Amino acid sequence: MESSGNQQLIFAQGPQAPEAYFTGTAWIKLLVPAHDQLNVMINNVVFEPGARNNWHTHPGGQILLATDGVGCYQERGKPVQVLHKGDVVQILPDVEHWHGASAEAAFTHIAINTNTDRGIVEWLAPVTDEEYKTTH
Amino acid sequence: MESSGNQQLIFAQGPQAPEAYFTGTAWIKLLVPAHDQLNVMINNVVFEPGARNNWHTHPGGQILLATDGVGCYQERGKPVQVLHKGDVVQILPDVEHWHGASAEAAFTHIAINTNTDRGIVEWLAPVTDEEYKTTH
Repeated sequence: MESSGNQQLIFAQGPQAPEAYFTGTAWIKLLVPAHDQLNVMINNVVFEPGARNNWHTHPGGQILLATDGVGCYQERGKPVQVLHKGDVVQILPDVEHWHGASAEAAFTHIAINTNTDRGIVEWLAPVTDEEYKTTH
Repeated sequence: MESSGNQQLIFAQGPQAPEAYFTGTAWIKLLVPAHDQLNVMINNVVFEPGARNNWHTHPGGQILLATDGVGCYQERGKPVQVLHKGDVVQILPDVEHWHGASAEAAFTHIAINTNTDRGIVEWLAPVTDEEYKTTH
């Protein structure tokens, strides 16, 4: 099985993601800070197996580009989508969701926050082990 | 040397880029069409060695994420920047520029057009062999 150790790193691994908003270990590399003129922010995120972020929304929306490993994406009330390299997820503004790695494999995605003039993220409750397990 | 044949393809290779706006062969895969709510458009572009697009501008700006190979980026009146995997280029609205592969190696980048409600691209003259040669 894959682990974060053999993810194909396109971008340097960033610092560890804040524990308050993540379950398990992830690393976030800021590629483009929220930009006044371009109106986007871009991060590269690596999740170890089982790691995921809390439920959250983006006031301006977000796009995920899966670049390595096996990941999960779920919108509130919908089934989990399993993500592989090359998959693209469009997240509309204010849609409650979470994303992260699968239980057995690490996952890497580029996250493009759109319309950052409206805000970046609103964090909600963690994805419990029970919620996460139902995805596998 | 690298060729397009051994680029690490994260995304499926798209159709060939239009000859009117490119010198040499490139392939463009549309990942996210210009989106009303997210206000961005995303493409993955593979350039064979020596291939480049015409001089052009983006009314809303663009961000390039270099993912494989060796590329070039130049803004009018500035030196060429050589791009490698992991490099990020922020292109402000209306800045005249071109990008493409180096002469000896293929190049792949993700291109994120920002503020697409202002337009996508304004094409200008080709980058002549003389202009291109001065970059190497």
